[in-house]
Amino acid sequence: MAETLGFIGLGNMGQAIASNLLAAGYGLRVYNRTASKTAPLAGKGVYVAKSAAEVASPGGIVLTMVADDHALEQVCLAHGSFVEKLGPGGIHTSLSTIAPATARRLSEHHAKHNVQYVASPVFGRPEAAAAKKLWIATSGPAAAKKRSQPIFDAIGQGVVEFGEDPGAANVVKLCGNLLIFATIDALAEAMVLAEKSGIGMKSLAEIVGKFSPLHASYANIIAEQKFEPAGFPVLLGLKDINLVLRTAAESATPLPLASLLHDHLLSAVAKKRENLDWSAVALGIAEDAGLKPSLQSKVAG
Amino acid sequence: MAETLGFIGLGNMGQAIASNLLAAGYGLRVYNRTASKTAPLAGKGVYVAKSAAEVASPGGIVLTMVADDHALEQVCLAHGSFVEKLGPGGIHTSLSTIAPATARRLSEHHAKHNVQYVASPVFGRPEAAAAKKLWIATSGPAAAKKRSQPIFDAIGQGVVEFGEDPGAANVVKLCGNLLIFATIDALAEAMVLAEKSGIGMKSLAEIVGKFSPLHASYANIIAEQKFEPAGFPVLLGLKDINLVLRTAAESATPLPLASLLHDHLLSAVAKKRENLDWSAVALGIAEDAGLKPSLQSKVAG
Amino acid sequence: MAETLGFIGLGNMGQAIASNLLAAGYGLRVYNRTASKTAPLAGKGVYVAKSAAEVASPGGIVLTMVADDHALEQVCLAHGSFVEKLGPGGIHTSLSTIAPATARRLSEHHAKHNVQYVASPVFGRPEAAAAKKLWIATSGPAAAKKRSQPIFDAIGQGVVEFGEDPGAANVVKLCGNLLIFATIDALAEAMVLAEKSGIGMKSLAEIVGKFSPLHASYANIIAEQKFEPAGFPVLLGLKDINLVLRTAAESATPLPLASLLHDHLLSAVAKKRENLDWSAVALGIAEDAGLKPSLQSKVAG
Amino acid sequence: MAETLGFIGLGNMGQAIASNLLAAGYGLRVYNRTASKTAPLAGKGVYVAKSAAEVASPGGIVLTMVADDHALEQVCLAHGSFVEKLGPGGIHTSLSTIAPATARRLSEHHAKHNVQYVASPVFGRPEAAAAKKLWIATSGPAAAKKRSQPIFDAIGQGVVEFGEDPGAANVVKLCGNLLIFATIDALAEAMVLAEKSGIGMKSLAEIVGKFSPLHASYANIIAEQKFEPAGFPVLLGLKDINLVLRTAAESATPLPLASLLHDHLLSAVAKKRENLDWSAVALGIAEDAGLKPSLQSKVAG
Repeated sequence: MAETLGFIGLGNMGQAIASNLLAAGYGLRVYNRTASKTAPLAGKGVYVAKSAAEVASPGGIVLTMVADDHALEQVCLAHGSFVEKLGPGGIHTSLSTIAPATARRLSEHHAKHNVQYVASPVFGRPEAAAAKKLWIATSGPAAAKKRSQPIFDAIGQGVVEFGEDPGAANVVKLCGNLLIFATIDALAEAMVLAEKSGIGMKSLAEIVGKFSPLHASYANIIAEQKFEPAGFPVLLGLKDINLVLRTAAESATPLPLASLLHDHLLSAVAKKRENLDWSAVALGIAEDAGLKPSLQSKVAG
Repeated sequence: MAETLGFIGLGNMGQAIASNLLAAGYGLRVYNRTASKTAPLAGKGVYVAKSAAEVASPGGIVLTMVADDHALEQVCLAHGSFVEKLGPGGIHTSLSTIAPATARRLSEHHAKHNVQYVASPVFGRPEAAAAKKLWIATSGPAAAKKRSQPIFDAIGQGVVEFGEDPGAANVVKLCGNLLIFATIDALAEAMVLAEKSGIGMKSLAEIVGKFSPLHASYANIIAEQKFEPAGFPVLLGLKDINLVLRTAAESATPLPLASLLHDHLLSAVAKKRENLDWSAVALGIAEDAGLKPSLQSKVAG
Repeated sequence: MAETLGFIGLGNMGQAIASNLLAAGYGLRVYNRTASKTAPLAGKGVYVAKSAAEVASPGGIVLTMVADDHALEQVCLAHGSFVEKLGPGGIHTSLSTIAPATARRLSEHHAKHNVQYVASPVFGRPEAAAAKKLWIATSGPAAAKKRSQPIFDAIGQGVVEFGEDPGAANVVKLCGNLLIFATIDALAEAMVLAEKSGIGMKSLAEIVGKFSPLHASYANIIAEQKFEPAGFPVLLGLKDINLVLRTAAESATPLPLASLLHDHLLSAVAKKRENLDWSAVALGIAEDAGLKPSLQSKVAG
Repeated sequence: MAETLGFIGLGNMGQAIASNLLAAGYGLRVYNRTASKTAPLAGKGVYVAKSAAEVASPGGIVLTMVADDHALEQVCLAHGSFVEKLGPGGIHTSLSTIAPATARRLSEHHAKHNVQYVASPVFGRPEAAAAKKLWIATSGPAAAKKRSQPIFDAIGQGVVEFGEDPGAANVVKLCGNLLIFATIDALAEAMVLAEKSGIGMKSLAEIVGKFSPLHASYANIIAEQKFEPAGFPVLLGLKDINLVLRTAAESATPLPLASLLHDHLLSAVAKKRENLDWSAVALGIAEDAGLKPSLQSKVAG
């Protein structure tokens, strides 16, 4: 049997990933702030820890999949944290989408405890995670990445390497989200242009879907105005585009398209759509084109 | 044997399409302004006409695949044009990417000669045309579309219907190009952010390519700075985005993302990159981020 | 007594200018498409012509102050137009805001009749025109500008020279309108930021007005949401920004700020505000910030 | 004789303001981190303190004019700071341009020591400060503003009130800088359009200067490409526009024009122009229009 891993953060993504680790023969010691989320795993022979620190064993591996930079910092930087418990030879394989700068700061902090930080943000939604279809971007110390490889094999379909800089893999993940949201925003404009030109949005979605699977899914959401339940809500989208812009500012990189996307998401928040799917920016674009009534009715409920 | 069709415009796309019509058993009477382009077909039993009008027979079908609005207007509106020769019962199946407004104007003009205009812009590059992999958006009179259906079957893998408005299919085609170019521009920003963050553009291209075939091809072009030969040059891209914006203005539809894309393409023209692939907007985005020397060297040659 | 001038176009601006010419001792032969507008001048010894052509005398001077490019082309290019009647030695002093390209085309057309075209767009509102406070940008043939100088002295407070290119003065006029509208749009953003930050827009207008008279007037309009009657309506603003963008495109000059302003004006049209003052773009900016109800109520009436 | 005031921060602005306070009969106890800056005042009977805290007397007034949020926080929040020394009845009149959120945080901190914080950012350059021509936006506790009034009278030409919220006056100051920079950016576009249209930028500056004094000064700087010495450098401009955007984000207010201005300033930093005047964004706009050589030569030195 493979070694026993620590795992912190059992949201939709975390649960799916943890299940695949179990299926691959790993033992697991898990922790989640909201204890109820651990129930599905508890029944499968998984040890449910009472604290984050408790999941770690000296020199072992801990994976984290938490909500944002702040949550990760809290769990890593506290006195007596799992990082300290890992100690020399330990590895923290960090799957969350966070700022590259945060990853670099954490990496330095870990080094003081002789723990290696491996940035390993994942590409894919919960369905992809469940199906072992994630792609993993990874950066950090070579030895630690090597030791993490069987884990990656157990949870995804492939890994792409981005060198030693612990921030690098997170830059890549942010680029990915920038690309996806640009696709959405462009689709929103195309859909509104179609609507205002007297063309059914569903017909446009049909032909667009022939070419690009990424476009297809969002084209359908927009055409059907089905922004609930949110696959990825406006608020998280805004968080990520803010990370993109902040990271870009650090290297003096103007990104006018990302700025535009930011403004569209911020407007969606201003209009109280923060919990709708991020493709709901299409509503604001429609309103700016004078299409208020027909589309807003869908959000009133 | 199937009926004999007229075909005007034998560029890369036109030749591939005409070949598939031949293969499907149609007879062809072809015309191209530059006569040398007709040579490959002449050897296959195709009649090479000396004028555009000569390809038409009363009540028949003529397909056109020409460069732009102006070229199509010239060939349609001249005295004694193929449209007049088609006359009552004739059909003009127009494959070019033109302004919806032009399509509507031509349709009205054709009606005076009792000819039906079928807007049928195609999605796909020359390789797709050669492989019968085009998708066709079509709009116009129902009867004429129905009569064109076997032709569409012979040249593409599917048709999507957009009603009677002869402008509709062209709006859809413009939406398609807007979506593609938005993908390119976003990729350009992501690539520059990666570069400025110390990440290899090729590694980013690798992971991006895992998710979206549309992104994959352009990510590679940008990562390798291989903007020549141009799959689709800056100048044509600018033409199409101008059509998008003009069409949007007609229905009072602001498209801020399209405006941004327009400005990036216009800047590429200002920098004498009009004949590079439209993904060469990445150079301008890199320069705005202070990356002048490393990237510009690639274009100097 | 000074010479007798022809004058075509008696809107608000035209009437004020014509009155100042009269006061300076010029004789006037006037024409306006809507005849009623000529009444105020008819009483002052002015000859009211029955056609545009009738205002001209061979070798004389005709001033025009009409709505737009189309109106000016109609009055100039018709057979038997005032241009033809002016003939050799005649001068057309054109005060309207039109596209530089139109000015250049008209200049060439005039040359065929040995008439000189002097581009002389004016800066200032009707009040400034009445008070002889206009500034005049002028370009065209040196001799014709020299002969127009006493006219400029009679209607404005100064002239700035822009060389021989008949389009140049119009580029300058377009630049002026770009600057004014950028001021308005920035004020609109500042006002919305103030409002959302809990600060009264009128207090902000007060301090802004201390620094810049140009800002002061628009800050008050926006703070009081007094978009009617329109000093300069959205529709004319959009026309002018379109001329800016078209002119810029001719020289491959991307103007991202002007593109943004265009989109804001186009959105105002989409929202049926085309007849409000162009500062009504502030409403759209407020709506994008989620301020719909408080501001829109002001426009409903 | 009027009371003795504490004064911290003797940069160009601070020195001019302190001199006017002296001239109005106030005693002064001054502190500046770089001691040499205090020399001009030392000769005029001013007490030069060895620490920031030393300028304060219990229940008195201290004015601060420091570089940025960080500098102000350092001087206020240290143990044994001037705020603690002011104690009950004391007033801190804060003249610096900082984030509204910082002002609010400091105000709360001061309240713990029974000190009142008066936000009083000033509008005007060093010349205006020297000439007592500043305008002051003020917000905070009414009593403290009343007690500060004679001080404002001694250093400026007027005060505009923005209520009790200590952040309000800083929002107003940020709005002011947004308006100024929008003016600059629009001028930059107009100038580049003129240049590309074959029109001298100096002639355009001349006519623009007739209408708006604010435009006049920047039009000349851009026309003459005289970006050194910097009246207000790119780096400070970027800092302020970042404050604008961050403040706007707090209230979910999208400001697309401010986003655009941000990107232009960030590009100027990327191109190593951070110490040029912020109107040097004109260089980037010119380069995007293909005007590289003619303009860049001016910056090489």
